Amino acid sequence: MIIITGALRIAPEKMEAARPHMRALIEATRKEPGCLLYAFAEDVLEPGLIRMLEHWQDWPSFDAHDQSPHAMAWKTELLEHIGLLGREMWAHDGSNGRAV
Amino acid sequence: MIIITGALRIAPEKMEAARPHMRALIEATRKEPGCLLYAFAEDVLEPGLIRMLEHWQDWPSFDAHDQSPHAMAWKTELLEHIGLLGREMWAHDGSNGRAV
Repeated sequence: MIIITGALRIAPEKMEAARPHMRALIEATRKEPGCLLYAFAEDVLEPGLIRMLEHWQDWPSFDAHDQSPHAMAWKTELLEHIGLLGREMWAHDGSNGRAV
Repeated sequence: MIIITGALRIAPEKMEAARPHMRALIEATRKEPGCLLYAFAEDVLEPGLIRMLEHWQDWPSFDAHDQSPHAMAWKTELLEHIGLLGREMWAHDGSNGRAV
């Protein structure tokens, strides 16, 4: 499994305008083959810092998502209208998963 | 590295009361040995759904955190005052990390 953890930073006052675009992205992405978890969440201590959690079945699933029309539309919206102030994102191969 | 991804569900109207307790937990946890990332964030589509992202250097670091006074204090607050409506949490061994 591929685990993506990361964050995007936007201006806190842009959160409400961004929310419907995030909803469109999230709802479309969750229907993709290989998508096991896909969530965006605003840091409880830092408004405008959007944490991302993703579980993908394998690397090709993630790559296909990254090239999907809805991911492209989100990136355009983020870069051209919402404004991206920072971004860091890591991928790890996840193994030996268990509930804790 | 150990990657924790998960979520807690609380009543949305409890978020503001919970926030200072989350801040105390997060600030203390980030000082722990072996803590590489520790964040709580409210799902952008589901108020009251608190997503968690954690990166730990190894399993003993996570175990020590789980038994720490600040983690215990948070659990007591969550269970006895804030109210826990749901919880799911996974641990994975993460390898081959790279920025994406």
